[in-house]
Amino acid sequence: MKNFQLDKRLAKDCLVLGELDISLVLLMNNALLPWFILVPRVTMPDICDLDKDTQLVLYSEINEISNFVKAELDVEKLNVAAIGNIVKQLHVHIVGRKQSDYCWPNVVWGTNQKVCYSDEDVRKLVELLETRLGSIFKRSY
Amino acid sequence: MKNFQLDKRLAKDCLVLGELDISLVLLMNNALLPWFILVPRVTMPDICDLDKDTQLVLYSEINEISNFVKAELDVEKLNVAAIGNIVKQLHVHIVGRKQSDYCWPNVVWGTNQKVCYSDEDVRKLVELLETRLGSIFKRSY
Repeated sequence: MKNFQLDKRLAKDCLVLGELDISLVLLMNNALLPWFILVPRVTMPDICDLDKDTQLVLYSEINEISNFVKAELDVEKLNVAAIGNIVKQLHVHIVGRKQSDYCWPNVVWGTNQKVCYSDEDVRKLVELLETRLGSIFKRSY
Repeated sequence: MKNFQLDKRLAKDCLVLGELDISLVLLMNNALLPWFILVPRVTMPDICDLDKDTQLVLYSEINEISNFVKAELDVEKLNVAAIGNIVKQLHVHIVGRKQSDYCWPNVVWGTNQKVCYSDEDVRKLVELLETRLGSIFKRSY
């Protein structure tokens, strides 16, 4: 989408790792758990507002990141959610959870606890994404 | 799916309104906002674990309920989420939100405020679902 601009709050809280066909791949800058956010480059606020083809691409991208988190990042459960009460720009959270994480079994939204990633850890994660997702993932970090 | 049993906590907190092709359609018994839950009759815990065909049906059912809530129930935004930290059975929340609701802009999970529906209000809602969704929705309430 031309003129697409990432929401300022997402840009402040997250690291932009790269992009898939329609979505930017963000990482919430909180190393306490793996928390990815897909931001499809669209203007509609809810997934059901997208046309069918765009929905299918977005769902496929959610699948890719979901499978990646489950297979590679030592989690027990995924939390996948499109909320958007505060940030209006459509974005989909894909959060890897386990019973030992900082806010289990509560949801992550509304929590404040945070440890920023080291640059090295982000680079390792991006390399793993590149290796596992292959050419569909274009890194930008 | 044979031998499918609705999770006990979902059965306690929600009203079973009916079913779609693969999902039970539940209504959280909280009239403070429209809060539907789809429970696909599967055994996997995460959407990404489902085979592609089952995923597509589930996504189509999420769309149906999402469109219904946005078109009929006076909401401004949807919160669509598969969480499952407490209830392990795969279920998808579709919650209609607006700025005047009881916990805006926070998420509904973890909140306790509740007003039960009247039987009459549930029946009206089920009739509206029947009218709008047509034959894909089999009511059981």
